[in-house]
Amino acid sequence: MPTLGLALMGTGRMAHVYGPKINAHPGLRLEVVYNPRIASAQKAAEDYGGRALDDLGTVLADPRVDAVVIATPTDTHVDYIEQAARAGKPIYCEKPLDQSLERVDRAMAALDAHPVPFMLGFNRRFDPDNAALRDAVRNGEVGRLNMLMSWSREPSPPPIDYVRGSGGYFVDATIHDIDLLCWIAGERPVEVMAAGSCMFDDRIGAEGDFDMTMTTLKMPSGALAHINNSRACAYGFDQRLEAFGDAGMVQTVNHRDDNLLHWDKRRTRALERLKHFFLERYDRSFYNALDEFHQAVTSGRAPSATAEDGRAALAIALACAQSAKSGNAVGPDIR
Amino acid sequence: MPTLGLALMGTGRMAHVYGPKINAHPGLRLEVVYNPRIASAQKAAEDYGGRALDDLGTVLADPRVDAVVIATPTDTHVDYIEQAARAGKPIYCEKPLDQSLERVDRAMAALDAHPVPFMLGFNRRFDPDNAALRDAVRNGEVGRLNMLMSWSREPSPPPIDYVRGSGGYFVDATIHDIDLLCWIAGERPVEVMAAGSCMFDDRIGAEGDFDMTMTTLKMPSGALAHINNSRACAYGFDQRLEAFGDAGMVQTVNHRDDNLLHWDKRRTRALERLKHFFLERYDRSFYNALDEFHQAVTSGRAPSATAEDGRAALAIALACAQSAKSGNAVGPDIR
Amino acid sequence: MPTLGLALMGTGRMAHVYGPKINAHPGLRLEVVYNPRIASAQKAAEDYGGRALDDLGTVLADPRVDAVVIATPTDTHVDYIEQAARAGKPIYCEKPLDQSLERVDRAMAALDAHPVPFMLGFNRRFDPDNAALRDAVRNGEVGRLNMLMSWSREPSPPPIDYVRGSGGYFVDATIHDIDLLCWIAGERPVEVMAAGSCMFDDRIGAEGDFDMTMTTLKMPSGALAHINNSRACAYGFDQRLEAFGDAGMVQTVNHRDDNLLHWDKRRTRALERLKHFFLERYDRSFYNALDEFHQAVTSGRAPSATAEDGRAALAIALACAQSAKSGNAVGPDIR
Amino acid sequence: MPTLGLALMGTGRMAHVYGPKINAHPGLRLEVVYNPRIASAQKAAEDYGGRALDDLGTVLADPRVDAVVIATPTDTHVDYIEQAARAGKPIYCEKPLDQSLERVDRAMAALDAHPVPFMLGFNRRFDPDNAALRDAVRNGEVGRLNMLMSWSREPSPPPIDYVRGSGGYFVDATIHDIDLLCWIAGERPVEVMAAGSCMFDDRIGAEGDFDMTMTTLKMPSGALAHINNSRACAYGFDQRLEAFGDAGMVQTVNHRDDNLLHWDKRRTRALERLKHFFLERYDRSFYNALDEFHQAVTSGRAPSATAEDGRAALAIALACAQSAKSGNAVGPDIR
Repeated sequence: MPTLGLALMGTGRMAHVYGPKINAHPGLRLEVVYNPRIASAQKAAEDYGGRALDDLGTVLADPRVDAVVIATPTDTHVDYIEQAARAGKPIYCEKPLDQSLERVDRAMAALDAHPVPFMLGFNRRFDPDNAALRDAVRNGEVGRLNMLMSWSREPSPPPIDYVRGSGGYFVDATIHDIDLLCWIAGERPVEVMAAGSCMFDDRIGAEGDFDMTMTTLKMPSGALAHINNSRACAYGFDQRLEAFGDAGMVQTVNHRDDNLLHWDKRRTRALERLKHFFLERYDRSFYNALDEFHQAVTSGRAPSATAEDGRAALAIALACAQSAKSGNAVGPDIR
Repeated sequence: MPTLGLALMGTGRMAHVYGPKINAHPGLRLEVVYNPRIASAQKAAEDYGGRALDDLGTVLADPRVDAVVIATPTDTHVDYIEQAARAGKPIYCEKPLDQSLERVDRAMAALDAHPVPFMLGFNRRFDPDNAALRDAVRNGEVGRLNMLMSWSREPSPPPIDYVRGSGGYFVDATIHDIDLLCWIAGERPVEVMAAGSCMFDDRIGAEGDFDMTMTTLKMPSGALAHINNSRACAYGFDQRLEAFGDAGMVQTVNHRDDNLLHWDKRRTRALERLKHFFLERYDRSFYNALDEFHQAVTSGRAPSATAEDGRAALAIALACAQSAKSGNAVGPDIR
Repeated sequence: MPTLGLALMGTGRMAHVYGPKINAHPGLRLEVVYNPRIASAQKAAEDYGGRALDDLGTVLADPRVDAVVIATPTDTHVDYIEQAARAGKPIYCEKPLDQSLERVDRAMAALDAHPVPFMLGFNRRFDPDNAALRDAVRNGEVGRLNMLMSWSREPSPPPIDYVRGSGGYFVDATIHDIDLLCWIAGERPVEVMAAGSCMFDDRIGAEGDFDMTMTTLKMPSGALAHINNSRACAYGFDQRLEAFGDAGMVQTVNHRDDNLLHWDKRRTRALERLKHFFLERYDRSFYNALDEFHQAVTSGRAPSATAEDGRAALAIALACAQSAKSGNAVGPDIR
Repeated sequence: MPTLGLALMGTGRMAHVYGPKINAHPGLRLEVVYNPRIASAQKAAEDYGGRALDDLGTVLADPRVDAVVIATPTDTHVDYIEQAARAGKPIYCEKPLDQSLERVDRAMAALDAHPVPFMLGFNRRFDPDNAALRDAVRNGEVGRLNMLMSWSREPSPPPIDYVRGSGGYFVDATIHDIDLLCWIAGERPVEVMAAGSCMFDDRIGAEGDFDMTMTTLKMPSGALAHINNSRACAYGFDQRLEAFGDAGMVQTVNHRDDNLLHWDKRRTRALERLKHFFLERYDRSFYNALDEFHQAVTSGRAPSATAEDGRAALAIALACAQSAKSGNAVGPDIR
């Protein structure tokens, strides 16, 4: 198996997701952990291996670094993309590309000028259940696709500081569902209608954000899609898809930690709540996403989740936010 | 058990639903079958019993007629309500009251002037599963109610003549989901957003109607509701509810004709498709609705599904139609 | 539809099951309710209609009585069968025929001498789920049938007086599972092995009976069958079948009163316990069994559940009792 | 975490299961791979690491070898146990200990004489679902335990050479279910009754063995247990448990590779068959079993699956074989 030496950019939450997955992959080699603060880089390098570096030029000049994995704060993604592209390094970048379309366009211009392999970390595409549902749709198992639905309800609201920097609920979270649904449908909406409320955490409302939304996407084919998002969910991380066509329907089912059925005097029940959150539920998808990047780069083909996908999802999420504010249908700014 | 002598007004499809249910109920007695065309009345009387009459005055003057069940074409409901109310007869009226708010207001004025017991046939409220879900919500089993969802997908499009006279998909069908959700939530929307397509039957689109819609209701509490409607459904009559609150979720599950699980080389499957359509799925709810009418009238209390409920559901359905046309959120004209 | 006038013999628990079903069937007419104590007959006739009679000769001589339904105490079945057969009346007889093979043989001799249509009330064959499972097996959906399993767990032990007169748990209850499994398999065991315990009600053990048994049937084809019986079951009336063949498996699923799924902080659960007991679970099967009798008699064919079936099931049940006592495999005395 | 250096004895199928698990465990270190044929040892060492050795004395004298994992052919287990015990090395031994009670007693005598930590590889105890079911039973969630059931149906018959050396179906496979059920119940049977057939592979019957069995265990408490075994199963590796008590029931559910539900014109179905076989279904249990061994040895307590457990399971399996042959209940030779 051809191997890739990687520089892991960043040492935060997502870097802690990718570090162990890189080590577990037989074709990936963690060469460098980069953070402008060397102490952070050193600590992460102790956990996952690789050399700790705080100088970007050194990282990008290192011939043992075949590619970079960008897992830094969102507002730095575009800068690192520009520099890595200029250095000719293939790029795996955690989603979203950025919260502003202008900056995303700058990144895309850089990738046009320096066409390195680029993959955006829309990890949910690489979840086996989601992929199986898409395959079923693409293989015609539901006939013509007419409706799509996606639920993503998180166990509990994030810290308010996270919310402040998140770009709003649509850009932070709905963007995942938007990408999934467009990827399954093979088309992007001409118009969106969204509604939001704040019912779980008043501090989120005080920021002008929502903690609960319902979104409708109108596709060019006439298909309609519903996205159901909540920042809180008592029974765990609720992740479901439903694809409805003229020949039938396919649904994904939530995951659990065990498989016990319990029958008692009053009822029958499954013993355990759902998987806690995305690290547990989508654990395998991060590995699979890195594997897609590895396969694409080593075989010379383009990775399947593109910067263009990221731009479109962002444009749609921004249109949702505008619709939720205005009460009107909004056409997203997709190039 | 105190008994009520009934006049069944009308001999069409819904009269054929109510006839056998009246006969099966120990407290109801079919006294009269009325149709202005006597031959139709006679034929129905042969099937279900009762005397065939074609003169409305005779029906309403008959002392053995304790109450009327109006199952005539929708555009005649208001006239019969006015006359029965004037004659002092308790009224059970099949939904909808009418397709126009003006005429509904006329019926309500008649009921104000002649306050007889009145019940609107929102039969789905009397389905045991739907009622159990509402009880669970009302008993606090999901905590504070934040989201509601209702699916109603019909097995196949109705004849185009039916569509033409139906008042449009929202008024004809979504109105059921609207009433259910408002009844469960205990509140009515301040604004609705709806989107529609025509993907199953071009003739429906040619009439300017939709055969597939997604609707969002924004409740005064902040709760959001989604309604998912389709005029076609390959796997049968898909009827589901989902109530999501801050302490959990309750869902109803579709009904089937059998209970076999089949395991073979490729997969596990349930043997049979869903119940075919509303006559099969909601069979028991029509009986239960008549039972509610019987209990209310014989005990002197008001029936639980009111004319006001019917007016509100119609106003919301009309707002949905307007939103689907304009792309804007619309506030329904609820008095 | 050709109709049959019926004499309902007996006014006990099973007569109360059959009375309403006879009235609900458009081809059956309850002519007579018979009990040697006229007061009991009169009371039942008030409930279900028909003339109350206490003289058997009068009943069997009545030309309006086209057939008899024997729902008297088990130890009187054979006598009534003999007399009704002699009178030339078609017979529907509640199971079991009798608790002794000798008396069963006497009944069969009477039916040989006076060959009237005869049906034994093995109602569980007429349950739609059980019938669908058998159809699946017979249609080859599991390939060659290799294993069969039947669970029948009752909600709570019967009164001890009932137990005393029941002929023992195998003869009283396992006989249902035995008949079902032989009917599905299309063959009868060459040998049985059974084990029993008494863990729920000591009074049952004091009678030398079991309240919990596991039985193995060895079929001539090599197929094996397991029967799982319990006189108590906290979660309701547990009724399941499993048919396992070389191409797959078919299972029936328990019935419930509602269809709610409830998700909360700890788990997901169905809201309600199982159907309470056989009157609720097998309600429809009694109607269907009478319908089979009606169809067979009015069309001149033999009913599908025969006296021979009843004799075989009894012989197998007696062999089970002997095996549970001796610890040895026992070959049943099937003629 | 304290670490253990291991010698992996054997390079066959089970060694290939344990090799990767040892490498994945942070507290285990593969020091040596042993096989009397050095070429085999070298090949395995290339795959999993460790030094290849063909001399047992060298292995057992190596101070870097803290413990041995015996994964050699069954008939060599006892010899290796004796030698490792004599050398003072803690032992993890793949099940079964041996096919003969005499040789098992020899091994137990050796362990008495040289009391090293010893664990038998009853991996199914370490499956999370099985363990959760036992916990539920032990925590009283079903009340008093009255019935236990275990299904183990394998996807397809093993090669006939395997069958010949397996000690018979009860000793080879039923022994797993026996151990599980005794472990859950906390008691061992006083008597067993078993029945067997050969319906899938005639060559197995020609060896005097069965490919399909039903076994009943009678426990001292009065509880009854059923074991359902088949050498073939069209829909995959069917592994289920059911624990029935006076307060309710707990069941484990089979595992699948995906979680799609598919609804079409005829039915609803899950897309995929069950996990293929034990390597897939019990993958995690082998890791967990090694983890139990690691925890026990490094903390100085006895491992939870003992040689005594292995002897009892074998004695019960041999009694089953005798019962299936004789048709009589047999009391197992448990010391």
